[in-house]
Amino acid sequence: MFDTIKDVFKAYGYAPLETPAMENLSTLMGKYGEEGDKLLFKILNSGDFAADINPAELDNSARLATKVCEKGLRYDLTVPLARYVVQHQGEVVFPFRRYQIQPVWRADRPQKGRYREFYQCDVDVIGSRSLLGEFELVKIVESVFSRLGINVTLKMNNRKILFGIAETIGHADKMIDITVAIDKLDKIGMDNVAAELSARGIDAKAVAKLKPILELSGSNEQKLSVLKSIIIGSETGLKGIAEMETVLSYVGNAGTNLDIEIDLSLARGLNYYTGAIFEVKAKDFAIGSICGGGRYDDLTGIFGMPDMSGVGISFGADRIYDVMLGLNLFPEEANITTKAMFVNFGGREEAATLPLVQQLRDAGVPTEIYPDAAKMKKQMDYANKKDIPYVIIIGENELAAGEATVKDMRSGEQLAVAFGELPKHFSM
Amino acid sequence: MFDTIKDVFKAYGYAPLETPAMENLSTLMGKYGEEGDKLLFKILNSGDFAADINPAELDNSARLATKVCEKGLRYDLTVPLARYVVQHQGEVVFPFRRYQIQPVWRADRPQKGRYREFYQCDVDVIGSRSLLGEFELVKIVESVFSRLGINVTLKMNNRKILFGIAETIGHADKMIDITVAIDKLDKIGMDNVAAELSARGIDAKAVAKLKPILELSGSNEQKLSVLKSIIIGSETGLKGIAEMETVLSYVGNAGTNLDIEIDLSLARGLNYYTGAIFEVKAKDFAIGSICGGGRYDDLTGIFGMPDMSGVGISFGADRIYDVMLGLNLFPEEANITTKAMFVNFGGREEAATLPLVQQLRDAGVPTEIYPDAAKMKKQMDYANKKDIPYVIIIGENELAAGEATVKDMRSGEQLAVAFGELPKHFSM
Repeated sequence: MFDTIKDVFKAYGYAPLETPAMENLSTLMGKYGEEGDKLLFKILNSGDFAADINPAELDNSARLATKVCEKGLRYDLTVPLARYVVQHQGEVVFPFRRYQIQPVWRADRPQKGRYREFYQCDVDVIGSRSLLGEFELVKIVESVFSRLGINVTLKMNNRKILFGIAETIGHADKMIDITVAIDKLDKIGMDNVAAELSARGIDAKAVAKLKPILELSGSNEQKLSVLKSIIIGSETGLKGIAEMETVLSYVGNAGTNLDIEIDLSLARGLNYYTGAIFEVKAKDFAIGSICGGGRYDDLTGIFGMPDMSGVGISFGADRIYDVMLGLNLFPEEANITTKAMFVNFGGREEAATLPLVQQLRDAGVPTEIYPDAAKMKKQMDYANKKDIPYVIIIGENELAAGEATVKDMRSGEQLAVAFGELPKHFSM
Repeated sequence: MFDTIKDVFKAYGYAPLETPAMENLSTLMGKYGEEGDKLLFKILNSGDFAADINPAELDNSARLATKVCEKGLRYDLTVPLARYVVQHQGEVVFPFRRYQIQPVWRADRPQKGRYREFYQCDVDVIGSRSLLGEFELVKIVESVFSRLGINVTLKMNNRKILFGIAETIGHADKMIDITVAIDKLDKIGMDNVAAELSARGIDAKAVAKLKPILELSGSNEQKLSVLKSIIIGSETGLKGIAEMETVLSYVGNAGTNLDIEIDLSLARGLNYYTGAIFEVKAKDFAIGSICGGGRYDDLTGIFGMPDMSGVGISFGADRIYDVMLGLNLFPEEANITTKAMFVNFGGREEAATLPLVQQLRDAGVPTEIYPDAAKMKKQMDYANKKDIPYVIIIGENELAAGEATVKDMRSGEQLAVAFGELPKHFSM
């Protein structure tokens, strides 16, 4: 699975990047909201950390944590990327195209589809406003999931459109409140969203105006066309529509089999997005979003390097793994680590077998020899338990004939193969 | 580099294992000596950790750390392996053959060849006393370093021989002191080792007896033969010699180009080794050991599962990386992430180019299109800075002819290639 994702990232011309698991806590804090700060794993300072603690400080764990911990485990791959780009701005060639496949850590309560350590597979272009970036990400999503055999829907929206909607209903100042509320449309339904909007100070008239926008249906073109007529008064909103049209025209031009759906309720939590936002859902397995991302215009600004527009997407490897496991999409061979096992008869037979074992290994065929001259039944049991597909027998007779007996463990068929032919026989 | 190591491990029939970065601190503490406990990175408990601290506890950082931290980052891959085997003993098929390539963390002062986060690449067989295990590790060392192009010496010793020596000089009870001292022979020389031995309570007569053993020279066979006559009175010592002879005879039988050297001063720090010990040094680059391991008879005993003999070896990826960098062993292509870049002329040309970009990517050729219709010079500068070997030009003329101009950026040569032939042209 990781190999597939990596192969796609490479084919699109992205370079690998790895960053340390530990970042300065000051780099991480405040980037993921208050809740995020709590979910950061913090590393206790080495040495005599307790000596500096004043007993009066024991009443505030959150503040004390930042005193006794200088480092924390990375929470995602985006903030480390921003830190890296700013720190290496002299060496990096912009637009900077990198992929990163590494674990991240969150002190969450473990539950289905949510882990304390999980892999993210991120791909980003930084330092270009070109919408070819968005187009590329759409194609990467298509390539990855079609190779993995997962049917997905790519949901798209645009933060500028969301702002345009907020502006149109007279609440440009409350865009965050509005997006947070409508992000829940899928889960809690329109009525509850309306209630939450009221609670957040959006008046009834505005909510009434918002409703038909969120309930727009039809093809992507139809949605955009109706939407355009509604938010015609918002310059930013129209820019968002134009951006989306450009991306869709790139995709249409290059051709696609991907199911792409404009979803105006898609908001995504992270506030650094400023343009396109994406989310991918598996059609045949319920597990939440398995991939998401978008355009951010000022990610590196917090680290003192303004105006570096970027666009990126993150594949949630552990959820994708769960989907593949649930849908039985892993090929049977994925479990096989040893292709051929030589039976061990000890003595002269063992001595004659070892060079043959080596030849298969040198040819890249995953090969074992049973470590002891144990009873045949014990050796075969081992091969069976490990699902080893072929067992090679070189006993007294085989040694005399110069031909190994190769047993296919699934069919039970046996075949005589000359010693010198074994590497060729198994490399095919 | 990781791909090479992984390919070798796979060819020898080892299965991949990954374990979480965080282990319970109780699993890690006490396994690496007092110094090791200090070097463990400890994770601060989430939530209101300070509430349980009694001000009187602030005078002992070490003890307080175990109270406010339940988890720690793994320090090596061996203890997590032992924990895993014990926890999953019902599912694991023994002998259990696994490899593991993951980072480990140590709160060391960073210095050349020593990092706070570094990758280990471990391969182990657990649940078999067969010396074919040791033989396999020798061949794995040979395969990995010959593929990486690094000239190495594999140093071998055996803990049973070290015990035999201690017994022979009349200090069987001081084997640890003796091994700790002679482990430094390389660094501090014979005289200083002798002084340290005296300081550790080894009498002068015993030291005098030890000296010629450590200064044994000649071929491995000669060393073993002389040694045998010296430690003839130690049953354990002779068993160690017999083990080493068996391993060397396996290696001789299968054939090897590896430089294998018996080094009786090799002791290795970790006290869980009970038989063969290995260490690999690069011949042409000074950086300490780049790979090491050995036989342990009771690794899982501390977790309540006695008598699981195992043998394993660990490749220090970051040091190996330093060696390869220092000796210029990385192929030039290792730096190339994009093989072909299409120039972007915008408009009609861009529209015609996008499907061709996609065809190359679908064929697995790392391909980019410059994100904007910028000036030609800017686009070529970008390609040069990134060492992109081929630039593909589809301007007005090329569009009319249906043939792209492919420029070789190193030679400057240009070639016309029909649009439909591009994937074939670059896949070769």
